[in-house]
Amino acid sequence: MSDSRRLADPEPMEGHGFYARNSQVQAAGLSPGLPLFVASAAEVPVPDDAGPIVIADYGSADGANSLGPIGEAVAALRHRRSAQAISVVHCDLPDNDFAALFRRLNNDPGSYLRGDDAIYASAVGRSYFEQVVPSESITLGWSSWAIQWLSRLPMPIPDQLQVAYSRSAEVRAAYEHQADDDWRVFLRARGHELRPGGRLVIVTMAVDAEGKFGYEAVLAAMYGAVQKLVSDGVISSEEMRQMAIPTVGRSRDEVLAPFAEGGTFAGLRAELVEVFRGEDRIWLDYLNDHDARRFGARWAGFSRASVFPSLAAALDGGTTSARAATFVARLEAEMAARLAAAPVETYIPLVRMCLVKG
Amino acid sequence: MSDSRRLADPEPMEGHGFYARNSQVQAAGLSPGLPLFVASAAEVPVPDDAGPIVIADYGSADGANSLGPIGEAVAALRHRRSAQAISVVHCDLPDNDFAALFRRLNNDPGSYLRGDDAIYASAVGRSYFEQVVPSESITLGWSSWAIQWLSRLPMPIPDQLQVAYSRSAEVRAAYEHQADDDWRVFLRARGHELRPGGRLVIVTMAVDAEGKFGYEAVLAAMYGAVQKLVSDGVISSEEMRQMAIPTVGRSRDEVLAPFAEGGTFAGLRAELVEVFRGEDRIWLDYLNDHDARRFGARWAGFSRASVFPSLAAALDGGTTSARAATFVARLEAEMAARLAAAPVETYIPLVRMCLVKG
Repeated sequence: MSDSRRLADPEPMEGHGFYARNSQVQAAGLSPGLPLFVASAAEVPVPDDAGPIVIADYGSADGANSLGPIGEAVAALRHRRSAQAISVVHCDLPDNDFAALFRRLNNDPGSYLRGDDAIYASAVGRSYFEQVVPSESITLGWSSWAIQWLSRLPMPIPDQLQVAYSRSAEVRAAYEHQADDDWRVFLRARGHELRPGGRLVIVTMAVDAEGKFGYEAVLAAMYGAVQKLVSDGVISSEEMRQMAIPTVGRSRDEVLAPFAEGGTFAGLRAELVEVFRGEDRIWLDYLNDHDARRFGARWAGFSRASVFPSLAAALDGGTTSARAATFVARLEAEMAARLAAAPVETYIPLVRMCLVKG
Repeated sequence: MSDSRRLADPEPMEGHGFYARNSQVQAAGLSPGLPLFVASAAEVPVPDDAGPIVIADYGSADGANSLGPIGEAVAALRHRRSAQAISVVHCDLPDNDFAALFRRLNNDPGSYLRGDDAIYASAVGRSYFEQVVPSESITLGWSSWAIQWLSRLPMPIPDQLQVAYSRSAEVRAAYEHQADDDWRVFLRARGHELRPGGRLVIVTMAVDAEGKFGYEAVLAAMYGAVQKLVSDGVISSEEMRQMAIPTVGRSRDEVLAPFAEGGTFAGLRAELVEVFRGEDRIWLDYLNDHDARRFGARWAGFSRASVFPSLAAALDGGTTSARAATFVARLEAEMAARLAAAPVETYIPLVRMCLVKG
């Protein structure tokens, strides 16, 4: 029973600015989604009554990687409608650091709220596996580095942290099944929320045409570090067994599967679905500065900000205990050292897509 | 310069559930606003197109005292429109505990989200002294125990914590001027946001026809306790001098002042403005249980949850320092002991009003 609880709760990104400072890989990876989003803003049908144009951001975290893309879409919309009100809704889990999001929206010099009197931001703290805004209210949707997170862990991964590297066919099938379920649930909710003609642009983790998930050295360092913490007595082997990263990469075929029969699903049509290789910003910086310690620290920081809260959820005492703080600090240091010892480029398969409400 | 910074920043209510557990006085006080709000929901013109009916909650804190009133208004609207989407926007300062608000909305058995598939909640983390939602988007507004908070402290209060008890005519005039400015700024923003015919119901702290602000024993205990912390060396006398409670009670005439010329202000008309005496729930419980310690602890908790963050802002190091934690704990204990020594009923003047967009 405690197992199923541990396995069931998705965790938000680390708060207090830590995610913002450790998400440059995500910032680089989302950039091929931007032209799709801006083109969508330029051509999407907008409401011609007095009501606002509503943009939804699904999986905002603290907004660090949302303000730029939303700002570009707003600029494209402003070419078409110079004075119409625009409303932006940032969605994430209830425990997300919304105060950080609002501080950024109000204070960041790059915030899209600056210099435009007719734009308004709000937040919804609710899982996007439900409908989170009224039906047919959204003109443009954006989601980057978010829907790779499963709604729940279907089962533990006994031989790995990341299902892509598990040798168990049963485990892999359970995660694929969950990923497909979640994708359909997500699409159905968005199908209700989008206005006719509305567009949703998504960037998420992928597996490539050969089935590769990537992140090999990073994940090996993480798993090795967790095993080291067991042998050092910091965590128990039972706790390690419960630890799993609740993310999946989706292949192009998996993205398209719901649309296979008849071309539409939940009223949505897939206009473009394209797997691409995300830029490894940390590796590119390493090629310039040859600073192996910094290289290791940044990938460990990336992992801590995004994945460690999910791992810490498997600890007796949960994510807020003193044990969790120790676990996170030790894991980060151990991972950083392992990665610094042998820097390599990380393979980052991503998929970008544009979905259109019929 | 540090003075003006200290004096300028309004502080949100204490987070982590503390405000929710210590706001029964507010819950009791707002109840005479409820019939106005429900009657407004029953008669306000609602949008007849497909768009949602939007309700705004100005000053939500963590939602503990918002869910009930909003739920009653929603029920009244549902009698008129059984299936139309309803959207509720909770507004508070960026640093408000929005995670607690969303947890409550999603999990509280009394949440208005329960059992209604066409109702959606969101939050805006921005001062309501600006426009926070699109123009003419709000059908119903609610604000309880919020607009007594000034946007800034105009000056220190050398001889008191609460301006109502200061003997300085200059200080009192400065606060009255700020209160009038803030009220007009608040009304102008709401005037933009309300739809034609939209209604805004407000409950806030008042002074009665004789100019009485109330809370006499509570404020005497608080000021005495702060003076004790100075003599005990916990805080400096200079820090005490900077401490001020940034709230004001408004008389009926002060509420009506902006409407004096021509009957409307910012497109709004004051349909009803009524000063009343708020119920002292803590005193009523004391009459039953004769537990003086509990009586003192509850008024000290009320003060800590609502006012102590503003006092702590005057400390060197600010509200998040270890000193602030010590100050808050000592002040609460000292206040509780003083109040427990001589329980008396607290006089709680409030004003309820209904404003209508012309």
